Amino acid sequence: MHDTATDTHDTAAEVTDFFARHRTLLERAVTATESREHWTPYPESPSKAVYGEDAPKLGEAAFREQIGRPFDLPGHPGEGRVAPEERSPYGFPLGISYPRLSPEAAVVAAARATAAWRAAGPDTRAGVAAEILARLNAASFEIAHAVQHTTGQAFVMAFQAGGPHAQDRGLEAVAYAWAEQRKHPGAARWSKPQRKGGPQVMDKRFTPVGRGVSLLIACNTFPTWNGYPGLFASLATGNPVLVKPHPGAVLPLAITVRVARKVLAEAGFDPDLVLLVAEAPGGRAAAELALHPEVRIVDFTGSTEFGDWLEANARQAAVYTEKAGINTVVLDSTDDYRGLLGNLAFSLSLYSGQMCTTPQNLLVPREGIATDQGPRTADEFADDLAAALDRLHADPARAAGTLGAIVNDGVRDRLAEAAGAGRTVRASTPVDHPEYADADVRTPLVARLDAGTDREVFTREWFGPVSFVIGTDSTRHSLELLRETVRAHGALTAAVHSTDEEVLTAAEEAALDAGVHLSENLTGQVFVNQSAAFSDFHGSAANPAASATLSDAAFVTGRFAVLQSRRPVAVTAEESA
Amino acid sequence: MHDTATDTHDTAAEVTDFFARHRTLLERAVTATESREHWTPYPESPSKAVYGEDAPKLGEAAFREQIGRPFDLPGHPGEGRVAPEERSPYGFPLGISYPRLSPEAAVVAAARATAAWRAAGPDTRAGVAAEILARLNAASFEIAHAVQHTTGQAFVMAFQAGGPHAQDRGLEAVAYAWAEQRKHPGAARWSKPQRKGGPQVMDKRFTPVGRGVSLLIACNTFPTWNGYPGLFASLATGNPVLVKPHPGAVLPLAITVRVARKVLAEAGFDPDLVLLVAEAPGGRAAAELALHPEVRIVDFTGSTEFGDWLEANARQAAVYTEKAGINTVVLDSTDDYRGLLGNLAFSLSLYSGQMCTTPQNLLVPREGIATDQGPRTADEFADDLAAALDRLHADPARAAGTLGAIVNDGVRDRLAEAAGAGRTVRASTPVDHPEYADADVRTPLVARLDAGTDREVFTREWFGPVSFVIGTDSTRHSLELLRETVRAHGALTAAVHSTDEEVLTAAEEAALDAGVHLSENLTGQVFVNQSAAFSDFHGSAANPAASATLSDAAFVTGRFAVLQSRRPVAVTAEESA
Repeated sequence: MHDTATDTHDTAAEVTDFFARHRTLLERAVTATESREHWTPYPESPSKAVYGEDAPKLGEAAFREQIGRPFDLPGHPGEGRVAPEERSPYGFPLGISYPRLSPEAAVVAAARATAAWRAAGPDTRAGVAAEILARLNAASFEIAHAVQHTTGQAFVMAFQAGGPHAQDRGLEAVAYAWAEQRKHPGAARWSKPQRKGGPQVMDKRFTPVGRGVSLLIACNTFPTWNGYPGLFASLATGNPVLVKPHPGAVLPLAITVRVARKVLAEAGFDPDLVLLVAEAPGGRAAAELALHPEVRIVDFTGSTEFGDWLEANARQAAVYTEKAGINTVVLDSTDDYRGLLGNLAFSLSLYSGQMCTTPQNLLVPREGIATDQGPRTADEFADDLAAALDRLHADPARAAGTLGAIVNDGVRDRLAEAAGAGRTVRASTPVDHPEYADADVRTPLVARLDAGTDREVFTREWFGPVSFVIGTDSTRHSLELLRETVRAHGALTAAVHSTDEEVLTAAEEAALDAGVHLSENLTGQVFVNQSAAFSDFHGSAANPAASATLSDAAFVTGRFAVLQSRRPVAVTAEESA
Repeated sequence: MHDTATDTHDTAAEVTDFFARHRTLLERAVTATESREHWTPYPESPSKAVYGEDAPKLGEAAFREQIGRPFDLPGHPGEGRVAPEERSPYGFPLGISYPRLSPEAAVVAAARATAAWRAAGPDTRAGVAAEILARLNAASFEIAHAVQHTTGQAFVMAFQAGGPHAQDRGLEAVAYAWAEQRKHPGAARWSKPQRKGGPQVMDKRFTPVGRGVSLLIACNTFPTWNGYPGLFASLATGNPVLVKPHPGAVLPLAITVRVARKVLAEAGFDPDLVLLVAEAPGGRAAAELALHPEVRIVDFTGSTEFGDWLEANARQAAVYTEKAGINTVVLDSTDDYRGLLGNLAFSLSLYSGQMCTTPQNLLVPREGIATDQGPRTADEFADDLAAALDRLHADPARAAGTLGAIVNDGVRDRLAEAAGAGRTVRASTPVDHPEYADADVRTPLVARLDAGTDREVFTREWFGPVSFVIGTDSTRHSLELLRETVRAHGALTAAVHSTDEEVLTAAEEAALDAGVHLSENLTGQVFVNQSAAFSDFHGSAANPAASATLSDAAFVTGRFAVLQSRRPVAVTAEESA
């Protein structure tokens, strides 16, 4: 087996097909991660022109037919069924059951599937992963409905964020995983000259080996977008993946698991490389699996409490978390006040602020900011923002399309509590959904706080449509608060508005100190909530809100090791002197 | 500052000099890590022809003059002096004192130095690191004497492993760090086509930011070889480094710190980016620093006990450990029995087995192995190995040059204990050192154990010149033991001897399962103990003996984050539609 000096990554002839099919795509994806320019292979428009005349209809039909029925996962191990009682935030139960798989049985099945996957090598694995993504892309309409009716996202957002944008993030992770595994050759000949006689010659082989069983603990609000990076990074680096969905959003990941298993089987691999571990609310599978000695990788999106617990206790595993943060906007000045207000109002409203990237703390000097419409005190700014929100949500149909529905009682409870925080500038108001009478749709709440007196309120995360206009001493004070609160409590996003280049530079320095990505002067149709795969980084291990970035090399390099073997090469009698 | 689309990594004009000087070297080093072929920029021969006529004399003089005197570190913070009571294993005290720096003062000084180092960018940092390595290379003779008289290594080994080979490992880490930071551009323009009107255009900046203060906890036996990778990886990725030497081997790292500080100052940076935290035996600086909230990276080489403690408790930090392992050799058959015995005897003897890579468990079927000199039972093999050791050490001068001296009482105590383990086949014997009458030089001990009855003995690490010939049921049983014991207890190295290609393939599979690098059929002048930078990986996070590999991308990517800022680009009136 050492006879060939060529790349030994691929061994199984029958599976090279998917790699050949997607090689150009993979190479383009790697280039995109390196250039950070705009690129996406998966069209974000939910249009018939792109996805086919029948795609929307067929996708919706697939979703509708699933309601009230057992979800079919051919050949999936398990005993009996589990019904997690998923319920659409638009007001109806899904009534779907899934295979019941115990944590121990899941680990055993996953581990059993690993050897052939390791032997297949990085190219084959990347090809299979790309094929899974291609099939998921084709299923984007079905997934969109599944995402809409588990997360409460409005349809277009569910399509984009749950479909193509999630697929982008998945492919991005595959690209990093593929590139990092290919950094070293499969084989090399080492020849070291000696002072006397011929050289020492060794043939060496290098094999990327997955770390072990990988566990994906997904969230309620972005099951695919936040889930795919870890799923595909682990799979592409040679690890089987146990997919443990949030009990409220199983369906999008069940569809994903079904697609993955089908492609794996077609490629000649054990489909148990991807397994669904569904459970009812209150189950302990996530915690139990996270402590299993064979589980060596954990990807998690969710609460700070459970994320911190995972980091402290899943010591046998490489743990990648995205937790909660206090997203912050520093307002200093603007030459487009109307654009600023419109952009910010939309950012607060999109999916009812139920994004890990939604701004919460809006820091405004009490004395005010300079704008192209004259100076505005902090109080005036708060009122102007409230008015912008009113304008944005004047039409219920359009409002519903932006806001989506409230995902769960946790958000409802925080909204109720927030009504008592500071001075409410704008109350959250219900919106009648034009299509779903029972949907719980609400506009954002804005409250007025002060940096000096309300620290306890604004230094915790209020996940949902709750934001605070916080009066500060000055922009300098605002930047100091940004630096200090994000370092202490974390953030997924930060933003600044200023016409002053020195302030922008100071904001950049503060963001680097705080370890958070920064958006500057967003007044158009790019929003701080949104990050584009292949160009924008999402999250950073540099502040407490996350221990990983979607995606970069650090997100994939801990998921595998390169193991080496070496063997002397016989030298001729003349050489061996 | 967004005006230029060119690489914005470097800003400080006065420091680009070192990058320009070493750019070709750095590029060559990156290529070497990717090809895994033989390459080294630092000649390993301690010869005047290479290092200059006066280099040996001057290096020894520098070491001799240091004995009994305070070590001078110009400008280094601290209060008073600390004398760690270093003592040469060759029988004399060093009597050197160092600045006393409290953990808190060290963190404060290091953190204060960070901002300019972050702003300098990856190119400048790599250039400074390469210059430090160049100066260390020039100081190789002085460092060799310092290593010899703190670790007990014989001079030539102290020169090679402590000098050029350690510098190789340092440059290798710089190469990975530089390449990973340069993977993303300093700036990019993102332009996303819109269905109507002109594109959305954003200018984005990407800045690698160090994780925070880095702590190097070095070991007694290879202070530079095991220390340089973490030191240089952290420095090159933008982190200040606190160097905490083992109290028994401060001098080699004090020299290193002095060189680093001098180069940093010449390059216009705060020399406190590299600080020495020396302490006397029994001090708690390592543990105290490892738990400091500002210490965000820990590199450690040493005992499993303290390594495990660090991994469990230094939760705020990225922790890279190399601990203890049970290095294993599987003996099945050979067509060069004499070469096998000679190679193995040397491997057991080199530096008295005080290498983390020295084989401990030699697994031999009780019924024996096939050789070109006829079959040998396990008992016969043990006797033959003992005879090979006798031959190797027949000449005291040559023996001393291979064995070096016993580094500390821990090794002496284990040797005494090992005399009662199993049946001693070959006792450890004292060797008279031709130059140092008080040097404690000893030959290796070999004991005969059985896989069935002596598991408790051979599943712990006996660091030092202690090895076991362990009888097994068969080669298959040996491979199962390799797989099982290394998975459970870890190993830095594994080796196999077989003339049967199927056995070699099975051994490779077992090594991949166990997560350990494998050497096959070493019978010449390459030894399992040794790994060559840029080609061989040392250690692997895939088994419990280590949480990192020297070096690969995983060793550097956790030391920094890439933080991003983005800003809309004004589009012309025609474009904005």
